[in-house]
Amino acid sequence: MKTFAEYRQLYLDTLLGSFVPFWEKFSPDPEYGGFLCGFMRDGELFFEDKSVWQQGRSTWMFAKLYNEFGGKPEWLDIARQGATFMDEHCFDENGHMYFRVTRDGRPLVNRRYYFSEAFAIMGYVELFKATGEEAYRRRALDVFAKMHHYYTTPGCFPPKVNPQTRRTKGHSMCMIMLNVCQHMRMIDDNALYDKVIDDSLRQITQDFLKPGEKALLETVGPHGERLDSPEGRLVNPGHSLETAWFVMTEAIHRKDAALMETAILITLWSLERGWDREMGGLFYFVDVEGKPVLSLEWDMKLLWPHCEAAIALLHAYLHDRNDLYLQWFEKVTDYMFAHFPDPGHPEWFGHCHRDGTPISTIKGSDWKGPFHNVRAFMLVSQLLERIDRGDFA
Amino acid sequence: MKTFAEYRQLYLDTLLGSFVPFWEKFSPDPEYGGFLCGFMRDGELFFEDKSVWQQGRSTWMFAKLYNEFGGKPEWLDIARQGATFMDEHCFDENGHMYFRVTRDGRPLVNRRYYFSEAFAIMGYVELFKATGEEAYRRRALDVFAKMHHYYTTPGCFPPKVNPQTRRTKGHSMCMIMLNVCQHMRMIDDNALYDKVIDDSLRQITQDFLKPGEKALLETVGPHGERLDSPEGRLVNPGHSLETAWFVMTEAIHRKDAALMETAILITLWSLERGWDREMGGLFYFVDVEGKPVLSLEWDMKLLWPHCEAAIALLHAYLHDRNDLYLQWFEKVTDYMFAHFPDPGHPEWFGHCHRDGTPISTIKGSDWKGPFHNVRAFMLVSQLLERIDRGDFA
Repeated sequence: MKTFAEYRQLYLDTLLGSFVPFWEKFSPDPEYGGFLCGFMRDGELFFEDKSVWQQGRSTWMFAKLYNEFGGKPEWLDIARQGATFMDEHCFDENGHMYFRVTRDGRPLVNRRYYFSEAFAIMGYVELFKATGEEAYRRRALDVFAKMHHYYTTPGCFPPKVNPQTRRTKGHSMCMIMLNVCQHMRMIDDNALYDKVIDDSLRQITQDFLKPGEKALLETVGPHGERLDSPEGRLVNPGHSLETAWFVMTEAIHRKDAALMETAILITLWSLERGWDREMGGLFYFVDVEGKPVLSLEWDMKLLWPHCEAAIALLHAYLHDRNDLYLQWFEKVTDYMFAHFPDPGHPEWFGHCHRDGTPISTIKGSDWKGPFHNVRAFMLVSQLLERIDRGDFA
Repeated sequence: MKTFAEYRQLYLDTLLGSFVPFWEKFSPDPEYGGFLCGFMRDGELFFEDKSVWQQGRSTWMFAKLYNEFGGKPEWLDIARQGATFMDEHCFDENGHMYFRVTRDGRPLVNRRYYFSEAFAIMGYVELFKATGEEAYRRRALDVFAKMHHYYTTPGCFPPKVNPQTRRTKGHSMCMIMLNVCQHMRMIDDNALYDKVIDDSLRQITQDFLKPGEKALLETVGPHGERLDSPEGRLVNPGHSLETAWFVMTEAIHRKDAALMETAILITLWSLERGWDREMGGLFYFVDVEGKPVLSLEWDMKLLWPHCEAAIALLHAYLHDRNDLYLQWFEKVTDYMFAHFPDPGHPEWFGHCHRDGTPISTIKGSDWKGPFHNVRAFMLVSQLLERIDRGDFA
């Protein structure tokens, strides 16, 4: 096993030598502002439409880099122009954010969800932290108010499944609210955030987590009922691992050791369930009873779940220095560095077959952007730096 | 190469020895009527919800088997109860068909499309042919009237993409209207069907077919404009091959040799573009310029495109007895029989990785049912029987 310092250097070199230069060079749109998304292997554009998720995520990423990785003024400028593009082009007449717009910012697709809002808020928050400019704080507050309204008001968006026949809930909503409130709390003193987080933690640990099955489920009944259907049996290991470290961050904030232990269990259970013992890597989806998963993509190895695993494992190690977490961290790191880099080309592949060979050579799409990998490589390098100097506070 | 009679026996044995017994035994729901869909390897149910597409498709399939493969009375009974379930449970208050209902027939999902209607019409038509009962003919006429209204009236369903920003059209709508009108024409004497078919043929051959690129595209502008986007470059070889033999059927009906030649070109171009020269089999999606395809499923080998290819190739061979079509038919048949059967278990796999290994062992889902494979094996065995006895009329 490498030393902590060596691992840190590996992650940092990849972050600043491969990921960031790619997105810095290719993603800011010199013509219309905002961020381009559709990149082939070496940065050539293969589509021009703009994912609104990526506008918020990229704004956040460049502002975070500016704040915590060296203060390069260009990064702040790039983040600023991302926020401007969002302000000017990404909100409909009711203040709901689009899902996709054209390169020049005309609306294409609106969805019955509000994840675009979550990423925009993260971007505004990070820009306020970078600049102290009240306008960014105001934008974060306004978009959060809207998002919280959607979250707490039934019927804002038409449901996909007839609610007279069946009611379910997915864990992504309370999970993203947890993360968004953690961001809002940094820039606003309002008891509401802790209240929303309390409720998110309750839902995650009581409704979605099934200790008897050692699984965090994606979908349950309105009161946490276990559903006997492919949807109700579905585990998304990467998603569970992401939730796990959101909960860990909260446990650290609250100095709540019991909550930390729960989040560590979610981490270990998700790795145990999701790891492919035959070919290595984390499956995209698994069925908690081992029954078939409907998505044909179930056995693919995607980059992002491995990124989420690395963060959760180092948080766990910082908590109690159990070697098991380091062993998993090494296993996940080895798998990532064996399959996702694209030697001789910038950035990494995002999607491999079960056997670890790439499905495509794209570097950017509506879904694959500078988010999961850049976030993980930032956080992992920071966590390794703390571990390396023994900061186990 | 096998003789035509040997190939015929191979297809027929698989149809009547593997496919049909599976669906006959497991799919009719003894409790609530209609057809169950979610089957694991040996027929065990892994979900209970009912796909409305599968209700129409299965009704059609059992009625067609009754009409053309031996007149087994049980098959007619099974088809009849499928139609009853549709009548009682699959239409909303406006007469639009649902996409998914519960096992006991309560509405779950409604969609902004009307493919459920297409498959229901096929089922009603085939039942009318089997029984001569006016009620089935009436149902086909009524549902067709509704479908035609949706097809010709803009704004019946909210578009996914903002039409003020971008207008596109997909080839599946005019393709399914072509096929549905071919069915309606068998039971109703109305010039409308030929008129709709004329328009479908015009759109397919003039708007979606790009001879310069040797490709039938999935999506174009409202007047056939080639779009420079992943969507506009997308070829779905299986879909193109299915369209090709729908067009061939029309060319035969109209005794239109030029149309037949066009459909044969679509067939050859789709095979050339879609065939994986490295690992064999037809890709699920390809980009007409060789750029990346957004869907992560692009390089999977699915059973159904190979089924559509087999039908198109034998229609082509019946037309002009060119050996090239037989060579392709042999190649496609060899690939299918090498990768999709599940020795020791009934029915076939539907989904393989690029390398031809199965992605999952499911035998039924919302999408995989007794349709593409059963239809192809019925038609292929009939076409081979005609070829074998030299009926090249």
